[in-house]
Amino acid sequence: MRKFNSRICDLLSITYPIFQGGMAWVSDPVLAAAVSNAGGLGILSAMSADAAFITSEIAKIRTLTDKPFGVNIMLMSPFADQVAQAVIEEQVPVVTTGAGMPGKYMESWNKAGLTIIPVVASVAFARRLERMGAAAVIAEGAEAGGHVGDLNTMALVPQVCDAVSIPVIAAGGIADGRGMAAAFMLGAEGVQCGTCFLAAEECRVHQAYKEKIVNAGDTDTIVTGKKLGHPVRALKTPFTRKFAQMENNPDMTQEDADNFGTGALRRAVLEGDGPMGCYMAGQSAGLVKKIQPASAIIQEMAEQAAQLLQI
Amino acid sequence: MRKFNSRICDLLSITYPIFQGGMAWVSDPVLAAAVSNAGGLGILSAMSADAAFITSEIAKIRTLTDKPFGVNIMLMSPFADQVAQAVIEEQVPVVTTGAGMPGKYMESWNKAGLTIIPVVASVAFARRLERMGAAAVIAEGAEAGGHVGDLNTMALVPQVCDAVSIPVIAAGGIADGRGMAAAFMLGAEGVQCGTCFLAAEECRVHQAYKEKIVNAGDTDTIVTGKKLGHPVRALKTPFTRKFAQMENNPDMTQEDADNFGTGALRRAVLEGDGPMGCYMAGQSAGLVKKIQPASAIIQEMAEQAAQLLQI
Repeated sequence: MRKFNSRICDLLSITYPIFQGGMAWVSDPVLAAAVSNAGGLGILSAMSADAAFITSEIAKIRTLTDKPFGVNIMLMSPFADQVAQAVIEEQVPVVTTGAGMPGKYMESWNKAGLTIIPVVASVAFARRLERMGAAAVIAEGAEAGGHVGDLNTMALVPQVCDAVSIPVIAAGGIADGRGMAAAFMLGAEGVQCGTCFLAAEECRVHQAYKEKIVNAGDTDTIVTGKKLGHPVRALKTPFTRKFAQMENNPDMTQEDADNFGTGALRRAVLEGDGPMGCYMAGQSAGLVKKIQPASAIIQEMAEQAAQLLQI
Repeated sequence: MRKFNSRICDLLSITYPIFQGGMAWVSDPVLAAAVSNAGGLGILSAMSADAAFITSEIAKIRTLTDKPFGVNIMLMSPFADQVAQAVIEEQVPVVTTGAGMPGKYMESWNKAGLTIIPVVASVAFARRLERMGAAAVIAEGAEAGGHVGDLNTMALVPQVCDAVSIPVIAAGGIADGRGMAAAFMLGAEGVQCGTCFLAAEECRVHQAYKEKIVNAGDTDTIVTGKKLGHPVRALKTPFTRKFAQMENNPDMTQEDADNFGTGALRRAVLEGDGPMGCYMAGQSAGLVKKIQPASAIIQEMAEQAAQLLQI
């Protein structure tokens, strides 16, 4: 077994510095446990659900793996406060955060001894979170699926690495060992992937969603919602086309967007609902060629990266 | 001297597989010769000028270097046809193209024995140009400065590498040896950089422009012009803010944009004109820390990349 030069593996007691991103409606105990059992870090999504939901998910994953796992807290969730408390009560090994600054929770999480690894999209956020006691940061470029920032992986990662001394995990556009090796060259000590795990056998998304990922080409994703301040990358569908059209109307409000968008991701995940589903995916969808077990995804990525990095 | 594993070096008889991008108003014989003399590939910009201009630039660079150099043809230029003929007459070693498909020129260029290396922003363009006889392609991600596409370097480069068998040069977000090494991990055999050469001592841009690059942080660039189909990345200034505001008006026309934008890049380059200049720059501006000779930029990048790649 090859050993990556990564503080992340030591810090989290994992074999491979590969995280599976916390994706709403997608990252459930079955997928996350499969990733953790394969030597990566599986991450549950707390979505916009209440504390009871994530507590139940945590209980489930503990029946499926005794390896470390994480919980991703979406900070815009109306239940963020109670979920932030639940991860303390459950003594979750790793907490990742997205869609905002977790500043107000950092002190209590650190007191409780949790390992906090926020997702950041800029140098300033990374610096602030290091000062607040983050154990590492995930620097995510705009090639990622779902909610995205402005900076792209190739430029963001080295700038974040220069700015902080805690480990940096690279995310955005990475779906194979080449991307993982590239991330290490940029100074990262691990990677977080979402899109390639959508095509994992253990992933709960509808078969039609998996097939769309496998069949996607390089230009098949688009970002919508930028104008309202919540840009999201997804596969191009009639849904995203309609959304993009709505954005051309200067009178569109957040409420219009919410009314139109609500349920579109859930429909894609659970029902494989074709034209009006929101199939969140990153630009790396074009690199995903087959549906296979999570363990194979991780093995292939780690082997290819190790070969390229000559370790 | 370390030897990179790159067909580009053999193909072009250059020491380091590092191209200096052809930037309008910027890439003149002095900068390009400095890069070529340092072992990279200097590239002249034909801008939107006529054939007499580029013929004169070619004559000048030949007095400054006997190393290979390139000419970049901006395909939207009204003089593209005559410039395309001029590079044949001048037997320019390398021709790169931007802002479109050079399809109609490929046959005559190939007959004339020129080495054609188009800039591409998608797999489909790369495939078509390989079939038409391109010697290599430059896969440029949207972190680059100036005119940009939709795909980002980390996702674009490996997908282009999978699609073609000619060498791929990576561009977008690369300003040091880490980016260069990352590009090689992704499958590229060379890099093209623009932003870091803006801060070269030999670069003609106004001292104020160089200082803006050196002082820029990660979030200091923005893309404008997307709505009209010609997105351009530049440093954030009152000019780009005003342009972005104009874009919010659904009635804005290409003519309005042209009237507003014309001269803004020239003003930035030649006059260092603060608020209303268009300082084209990539997201890698945040990685550029000092003004130094082009030879030092290339040496540092090549040395750092060689070390990371263990060659």
